[in-house]
Amino acid sequence: MIRVAVVGAAGYIGGELLRILVSHPQVEIAAATSRSLHGRQIDGVHPNLRGRTKLVFSPEDELDRYDVLFLATPHRETMSRMPEFLAMAGTVIDLSGDFRLRDPDAFADYYGLAHQAPDLLPTFVTGLPELHRERLRTADRISVPGCMASAGMLSLVPLAEAGLITGEVAVDARTGSSGSGAKAGVENLHAERSGALRVFAPTRHRHEAEIAQATGLPIRMTATGIEAVRGVQLVCRAWLGDGVDERSIRSTYRGRYGEEPFVRVVAQRRGMHRFPDAKILSGSNFCDVGFALERGSPQVTVIAALDNLVKGGAGNAVQCMNVRFGLSERAGLEFTGLHPN
Amino acid sequence: MIRVAVVGAAGYIGGELLRILVSHPQVEIAAATSRSLHGRQIDGVHPNLRGRTKLVFSPEDELDRYDVLFLATPHRETMSRMPEFLAMAGTVIDLSGDFRLRDPDAFADYYGLAHQAPDLLPTFVTGLPELHRERLRTADRISVPGCMASAGMLSLVPLAEAGLITGEVAVDARTGSSGSGAKAGVENLHAERSGALRVFAPTRHRHEAEIAQATGLPIRMTATGIEAVRGVQLVCRAWLGDGVDERSIRSTYRGRYGEEPFVRVVAQRRGMHRFPDAKILSGSNFCDVGFALERGSPQVTVIAALDNLVKGGAGNAVQCMNVRFGLSERAGLEFTGLHPN
Amino acid sequence: MIRVAVVGAAGYIGGELLRILVSHPQVEIAAATSRSLHGRQIDGVHPNLRGRTKLVFSPEDELDRYDVLFLATPHRETMSRMPEFLAMAGTVIDLSGDFRLRDPDAFADYYGLAHQAPDLLPTFVTGLPELHRERLRTADRISVPGCMASAGMLSLVPLAEAGLITGEVAVDARTGSSGSGAKAGVENLHAERSGALRVFAPTRHRHEAEIAQATGLPIRMTATGIEAVRGVQLVCRAWLGDGVDERSIRSTYRGRYGEEPFVRVVAQRRGMHRFPDAKILSGSNFCDVGFALERGSPQVTVIAALDNLVKGGAGNAVQCMNVRFGLSERAGLEFTGLHPN
Amino acid sequence: MIRVAVVGAAGYIGGELLRILVSHPQVEIAAATSRSLHGRQIDGVHPNLRGRTKLVFSPEDELDRYDVLFLATPHRETMSRMPEFLAMAGTVIDLSGDFRLRDPDAFADYYGLAHQAPDLLPTFVTGLPELHRERLRTADRISVPGCMASAGMLSLVPLAEAGLITGEVAVDARTGSSGSGAKAGVENLHAERSGALRVFAPTRHRHEAEIAQATGLPIRMTATGIEAVRGVQLVCRAWLGDGVDERSIRSTYRGRYGEEPFVRVVAQRRGMHRFPDAKILSGSNFCDVGFALERGSPQVTVIAALDNLVKGGAGNAVQCMNVRFGLSERAGLEFTGLHPN
Repeated sequence: MIRVAVVGAAGYIGGELLRILVSHPQVEIAAATSRSLHGRQIDGVHPNLRGRTKLVFSPEDELDRYDVLFLATPHRETMSRMPEFLAMAGTVIDLSGDFRLRDPDAFADYYGLAHQAPDLLPTFVTGLPELHRERLRTADRISVPGCMASAGMLSLVPLAEAGLITGEVAVDARTGSSGSGAKAGVENLHAERSGALRVFAPTRHRHEAEIAQATGLPIRMTATGIEAVRGVQLVCRAWLGDGVDERSIRSTYRGRYGEEPFVRVVAQRRGMHRFPDAKILSGSNFCDVGFALERGSPQVTVIAALDNLVKGGAGNAVQCMNVRFGLSERAGLEFTGLHPN
Repeated sequence: MIRVAVVGAAGYIGGELLRILVSHPQVEIAAATSRSLHGRQIDGVHPNLRGRTKLVFSPEDELDRYDVLFLATPHRETMSRMPEFLAMAGTVIDLSGDFRLRDPDAFADYYGLAHQAPDLLPTFVTGLPELHRERLRTADRISVPGCMASAGMLSLVPLAEAGLITGEVAVDARTGSSGSGAKAGVENLHAERSGALRVFAPTRHRHEAEIAQATGLPIRMTATGIEAVRGVQLVCRAWLGDGVDERSIRSTYRGRYGEEPFVRVVAQRRGMHRFPDAKILSGSNFCDVGFALERGSPQVTVIAALDNLVKGGAGNAVQCMNVRFGLSERAGLEFTGLHPN
Repeated sequence: MIRVAVVGAAGYIGGELLRILVSHPQVEIAAATSRSLHGRQIDGVHPNLRGRTKLVFSPEDELDRYDVLFLATPHRETMSRMPEFLAMAGTVIDLSGDFRLRDPDAFADYYGLAHQAPDLLPTFVTGLPELHRERLRTADRISVPGCMASAGMLSLVPLAEAGLITGEVAVDARTGSSGSGAKAGVENLHAERSGALRVFAPTRHRHEAEIAQATGLPIRMTATGIEAVRGVQLVCRAWLGDGVDERSIRSTYRGRYGEEPFVRVVAQRRGMHRFPDAKILSGSNFCDVGFALERGSPQVTVIAALDNLVKGGAGNAVQCMNVRFGLSERAGLEFTGLHPN
Repeated sequence: MIRVAVVGAAGYIGGELLRILVSHPQVEIAAATSRSLHGRQIDGVHPNLRGRTKLVFSPEDELDRYDVLFLATPHRETMSRMPEFLAMAGTVIDLSGDFRLRDPDAFADYYGLAHQAPDLLPTFVTGLPELHRERLRTADRISVPGCMASAGMLSLVPLAEAGLITGEVAVDARTGSSGSGAKAGVENLHAERSGALRVFAPTRHRHEAEIAQATGLPIRMTATGIEAVRGVQLVCRAWLGDGVDERSIRSTYRGRYGEEPFVRVVAQRRGMHRFPDAKILSGSNFCDVGFALERGSPQVTVIAALDNLVKGGAGNAVQCMNVRFGLSERAGLEFTGLHPN
């Protein structure tokens, strides 16, 4: 059994890690910390785990040594405490955001402050098995991408690497409210957020920088909060290289993702399900990718969807752990999602 | 023009008062206070008022003297400051809850503390024109009922007064999230509240006591938070007196509400709109009331719906003002509601 | 491997059966029929199954012989074709509703027509393992209860059997839109149904009769369609027998459900999760049951929640199959549900 | 009083016309037709009008002659019957879509069939007062733009006419379910549409052609159905001309819309309401327009929102009538919208 600890287990990403890990056949959850709730039952905060665990939140100062440490800790704090965390586990899987951008200047530009552990940046591997599986097999420091960034990278990297798209890519990203975390704030009150179409980042969202880093292309992303608790959808427009047609795009995606357990190329001709929609992905680790080409147009529209807490966070982190420890990649991640939902 | 002030204008009830009052043809809004936001534009907080007002929130210590003072102030604070408020206006219309129960013992029982101005309690008139229109014509102190209480009183008082129902009444009340106010709290986070069916008061909700006071009947009410920002719906079960049938109930409601501008007796035989539903009432001052009788059953099921911020709060308060000042009762309250919505 | 067929596999219950069965370790789906869609890929209709099955809908006239036949067929048609279905499989698990009431008169009363196979009625066992596990171990004809009925029976039968409640029980049932099935109708249009609080059955809902049959108590149920795709919640009020207190109720539920894999007694003292809410149950096979007692009141309020398509339908049916074939009851039903969701 | 008739009054646009017109001080509704529902009470279908009208749907063959004929009739049928309609009224205001594109080739291209009354196309004026007020003062044939087209035209025409933007514009359009109309269809079932992010037109939506016609710029639009009954939001990206900065854009919008009763330039610096959101516009005739410029970027992001049935349809049509008849443009259109909602 792999002994794991989850730091920051009372939040939404922490809770989702626990949900997946309690059912994971090769994992033992040795600790789940919360600064404010230690001593309390985990299922009081994450009521979906009633009957599935008797775990109690532990304080951070009782952390010990583990095979894997999952960090669902706040940005800023994470980079300053990373040396401490690295000493606690053979493998550290960070979901905080602090180690996603390899370039300290890009970090400073997008996060608005200097990185506090720039020497550690190159030691982290991007936690997206579809793009970095080989490196992940031996990686001890893994940085899981942002939810919208994962969808964007899975959408665009295959096309960019194959040279099918060129120039600037426009990305419209839509995201549910759980991405804002479990902390109260007026802007996340139900009465304010319900039914909203809130353009909260018309430009310069941090995940934009991750997609640019992965694709090598300039990205212009707009992020809108939509009515959903879970779910991310991206609509990307990219310029096609000369002579690129529908077949070359489809075969590129199929070649890349045909054997992937958690990326599905959606290519129905008609019907209400012909493009990816996060509605059917809640709880699942799938990222669905589809596309549309207008006859005669020099652009392709790529659409991707995932559950921000699963393939866009905790599920992806567990998939990375599975790769790292040579387990079945599907272990703990079997849930298919619901229809209707 | 009637000069009015709204105390506590940054909250949801305060904002709804402003929405109605800016369009009211006989009203001048002389002040709208907010302790935390004074000096800021009203339409920054209530964005629906953009282009309709240039008002700025004022501090409470600049309050002066007005024809009408609307109190959208917190419970507890209101009762202790009431003497101060009464000195500021000819007519005080209180939406806080502190003056709804006439009996200080009932107040202590349901609110969990002793009333701080028990002498003032009998000087307030219940602000529900359908039940107290004559007294409201000359009332200077008006206490607007709770949102669920208004629906319950409009449902049950006609039947109780006509002697058609008897014994205990069971009330299932459902309410949207705006009833919890504009203050942030974890339990009102969108991610927690969206799609919830949260039984937040299985027994002993304060509005239960108001319905009991108005009907003279024992009331057992359960309150559930449902997925809506606005809207209250009540399903009430009452025991019929001997020989009471559908016709007597219908004629009682029709007799009582036939001429009312804001209570509609819904009595369609079939279709999806045959019982009251708050979905079509957002923004309107209507309370819709309907009922069902099972052949051979000794019970009647009464269903009522309203918008908690309008007929269940601010709209009802303005209707009371209209009655008090001899205006058309519909003034400022013409909006019909939307379908679909 | 158990060879199963699902008849009526294109609907919502049929789709949910397929979702559960494709992941069930001891099951082989031998056929999934659809009259209108035969020949088409199953994942075109149930897009959550993409990548999990290559099954194609088959026509009904190609049905053969199976270990288990799940019937997600329409009411009326099912009772007339039951002899035909019984010839096709060792075990028939019917989700249609036609074999839920044992008394042909009650059936005629609630369904408005005479039963067409009254002789078969007593041969069916009610498919609720918590109440009928022993009989289900050898049952070849199983009738799965209605979604609201399952919640009602799990709420009330333990109290009724222990003699803790007496007299009439009032039930307020709330249900999501998937219970209306996958057929289009104006009343289920998103624009009409979204955000609705639609009292579609103020009295005489068919599931009321099932709860009455199981408890032996008179039941008065009101059914309201609420804003959810999945989910049922019941709020039941019952009269307590003499001397019954909170402890006796809690110990009765705990005694009954302490070892049950899929019923959880929810008994938190405070917080937003202290009563059952279907919001966290989507996709899971749990029925959560909780209750509240007002000091001094002669009534108890019992609250129950489940996913109508899972514990209220397909999941419960698979649990019955697991019991019948001596498998782990949890097989195929491990998903815990999501928080937040 | 202006005598008006609404043809196709049982649909959502028809119902919204009736909602506005019953409260319009200078209008008499002389007829409201429905082929399938004639003889039935209007408030049975549009329950928000209970207590506001006793009108009954009339058959189309009883249509007579009116001052204004509003056509909420189906596309295709409308163009073939237009000569007949023109004979019935001094002013025809068409909401069908058939007379929005002036170029028959563009029509054939986007609608997939030849126009049946190409000679009439140039006789229609686009019904958007902000762009065509002078022509509308004397127009007898008015074609109201599509909901997303109105938002796009109000967003982009001022910038295009001032030469501030150039080249291709990418438009991400999001729309609620009421835009699909009141006819049942599986894809609009609540269970399928609730919470969906459905990219139903990745390219070539018809409203794209209207925006292109009005701006003279190439438009690439993607249309996504989102969780809302009412509401349209557009996010547009356009390339800035040389030297264009934030100030020139703001002053262009302010110059153009400063005196407009129904277009608001939203320009808050911070907070959750700093960009247009349809959430607060339900029932109102406002189109809110805002924008964001990233420092150093050659692009501007323009965001617009409106209620598709009001400023995107019926409200806009009534505003056109008000212009045409020299009335106050606000007549019948005073509702401000709700916050929260």
